[in-house]
Amino acid sequence: MSYGEIFPMWRAAAGEVWPRYTRHPFVEGMGDGTLPREAFLRYLVQDYLFLVHFARAWALAVTKTETLDEMRVCAATVHALLDEEMRLHVETCAAEGIPEDALFASREAPQTIAYTRYVLDAGHSGDFLDLLAALAPCVLGYGEIGARLAADGRATPYADWIAAYAGAEYQGACRAVGALIDTAVARRLGPSPASSPRWPNLCARFETATRLEVDFWGMGLCG
Amino acid sequence: MSYGEIFPMWRAAAGEVWPRYTRHPFVEGMGDGTLPREAFLRYLVQDYLFLVHFARAWALAVTKTETLDEMRVCAATVHALLDEEMRLHVETCAAEGIPEDALFASREAPQTIAYTRYVLDAGHSGDFLDLLAALAPCVLGYGEIGARLAADGRATPYADWIAAYAGAEYQGACRAVGALIDTAVARRLGPSPASSPRWPNLCARFETATRLEVDFWGMGLCG
Amino acid sequence: MSYGEIFPMWRAAAGEVWPRYTRHPFVEGMGDGTLPREAFLRYLVQDYLFLVHFARAWALAVTKTETLDEMRVCAATVHALLDEEMRLHVETCAAEGIPEDALFASREAPQTIAYTRYVLDAGHSGDFLDLLAALAPCVLGYGEIGARLAADGRATPYADWIAAYAGAEYQGACRAVGALIDTAVARRLGPSPASSPRWPNLCARFETATRLEVDFWGMGLCG
Amino acid sequence: MSYGEIFPMWRAAAGEVWPRYTRHPFVEGMGDGTLPREAFLRYLVQDYLFLVHFARAWALAVTKTETLDEMRVCAATVHALLDEEMRLHVETCAAEGIPEDALFASREAPQTIAYTRYVLDAGHSGDFLDLLAALAPCVLGYGEIGARLAADGRATPYADWIAAYAGAEYQGACRAVGALIDTAVARRLGPSPASSPRWPNLCARFETATRLEVDFWGMGLCG
Repeated sequence: MSYGEIFPMWRAAAGEVWPRYTRHPFVEGMGDGTLPREAFLRYLVQDYLFLVHFARAWALAVTKTETLDEMRVCAATVHALLDEEMRLHVETCAAEGIPEDALFASREAPQTIAYTRYVLDAGHSGDFLDLLAALAPCVLGYGEIGARLAADGRATPYADWIAAYAGAEYQGACRAVGALIDTAVARRLGPSPASSPRWPNLCARFETATRLEVDFWGMGLCG
Repeated sequence: MSYGEIFPMWRAAAGEVWPRYTRHPFVEGMGDGTLPREAFLRYLVQDYLFLVHFARAWALAVTKTETLDEMRVCAATVHALLDEEMRLHVETCAAEGIPEDALFASREAPQTIAYTRYVLDAGHSGDFLDLLAALAPCVLGYGEIGARLAADGRATPYADWIAAYAGAEYQGACRAVGALIDTAVARRLGPSPASSPRWPNLCARFETATRLEVDFWGMGLCG
Repeated sequence: MSYGEIFPMWRAAAGEVWPRYTRHPFVEGMGDGTLPREAFLRYLVQDYLFLVHFARAWALAVTKTETLDEMRVCAATVHALLDEEMRLHVETCAAEGIPEDALFASREAPQTIAYTRYVLDAGHSGDFLDLLAALAPCVLGYGEIGARLAADGRATPYADWIAAYAGAEYQGACRAVGALIDTAVARRLGPSPASSPRWPNLCARFETATRLEVDFWGMGLCG
Repeated sequence: MSYGEIFPMWRAAAGEVWPRYTRHPFVEGMGDGTLPREAFLRYLVQDYLFLVHFARAWALAVTKTETLDEMRVCAATVHALLDEEMRLHVETCAAEGIPEDALFASREAPQTIAYTRYVLDAGHSGDFLDLLAALAPCVLGYGEIGARLAADGRATPYADWIAAYAGAEYQGACRAVGALIDTAVARRLGPSPASSPRWPNLCARFETATRLEVDFWGMGLCG
């Protein structure tokens, strides 16, 4: 999964932190079916709350764009998060007897607070690129995880989750976000972004958000 | 046109400033067809730029919501602005030989800057209600103007503009925004909002935004 | 320590979460001298980073004020944080061989990220009161802790820390912030703030920030 | 007056817009004493309101810094605006029978709204550099105007205004802001900032803010 040109550079700069996220025991447990149902539901409730704030972060991105194309991709992502990606959570939780109101009113875990508010602050303290670097690990990492687990093709009770992120719709969204990042970086940093003085900070943003993803899986696994 | 319960209260509090906006000579000139084409085009270019920043302000509103319903109405409004309301501007200007890129790159008039940035700052400096009070005059005032001019039914070269704002789609959006304001105010100020200490400030926000609308029509008329 | 009228109401609403923060084992260990030096230094480095972002949050508060008095108290707090409160950290760490540049460049613990970005987002998503409710537990809780430990008067290697927060300067700042909160709440919610529909949310802001304080001490104690 | 290296580049890029601001008839009228007192007072009341929001914009800058030095210069500027620069306005207006409460409660002119909210939005929509480019024309332009008029040395009833901006304190603040800009630009754009793809946008920010300064003088002159 490359999703453009900049994402692989940020992913490489994150070194071993990246596989700690994308090959986390929680992920492997979804792939081989050994993940306890309780852990999955704990994760799903927190991920619902995560998506609420993640949608707010993409809406913040709309306010920081410089072109109509940037505006439209970000606005479409807000829509996809609120009206599509959350549906999996709502339906799965409803099947377990947790209605959406209860989901929305759940108490956020510290790991959910840390990750979501870090992303929002990346936007408020910096510009569109700072925000994109903090948004990228979740969007594109889930695409990478979903595609890998789907290719493995093992039987698992978490096949719906895998199918959602491996599916054509989500993978298309990942390609759109990858292209958005490439265009936005070229527009602001020029043709050699890695030689910009801002590059280390953008890589650090991406890496910190990835670390917070690792903590988020850990919260799902261990409470 | 009432569009809910709070809007008529804010409109009444604005006193004679409200008809100075909704019965501005620019508006009357669209209604009876006497508005010079040049003035209309000058307005349309600036209104396109206005809508770019107005969409940013509705996206900011998404980040300041407290319920899923509030999020969804605001996100839908961003979408409607970017993908529907701007289309009238783009198509009309294209017919006059002004492509969308040229629109987006036009220089903002001071009146456009004053109005749009005032609305955005209402959101940044206050809460969701402060932002809604600054967003309301444009959304709901255009609904009121469109409906009145359509009811007049005079022949005018500006019939497309009138039809767009008098149409079922835009009027439905106005009712949704009116309901959003009512619910959001009740949630934060309780059943007697006019007795809240914040009420005069919210009315002042609404009135200032209305004054900036008057200046905006004036810019269209006189440059 | 009452520091005004609203703070005791928020503190009471937080129930047993408040003493979990102000009587945390880390705090008791500073009081009786049993806190390991290593834990204190780990805390001090993270608290330095905390103060950098806490100063940013008080600066954000300046942008959300409605009166000159509110502006001046918030601006004075930014100044006090950057030029006074951080001095203890810088001098103590320098004595341990950690220069200020190294402090500033340290990696933030997840608990530092969670707490500071939560406070900043309280400001961005809400109004001045939402921000104050998230700022209060740290400012006023430290005042309460410092005063209590100083009154205990036990010999401890952490006497400098205790003296800093029990001192007249910090206690005066606490009274100023307590008065700021009282005035700001009265201005926006009127004479019976606890009957405002916003009251439960403000109490929840205060309680969540207090929980994040508990996690912060826990990080100091255990890494 | 150069105030660093970047400011002269931005000033040159603004072309004839810069002298339209710094040699505006309002300015020349202060220099030769022909400016009507009524115009000066109208300006002074609006400039007081301007400074309230300009202090908010410098506080916003604190939230967008990346180094301690950046934080401290911005925080010191907030302090200087609130506690020093406004004093001239308060004392001059008090001598004319306008108390500070009345100043604070005056209605903002559209030109005041346009300029201040544009600067704030530059910060919210972009990063620290976008905000600095919008802040620079006012801070450094006033330094340039004050120094020039003082060097002219003509007798004028506006000698206090000239002395305030020509004085050592204000000129020192200008040099500090000029140095802040140079360091902040070098940190983010490297040693050849004019070849960065962001350069034209930064120049455009500076020029737009300068245009809004021209409108502000015009408001003072003509109401």
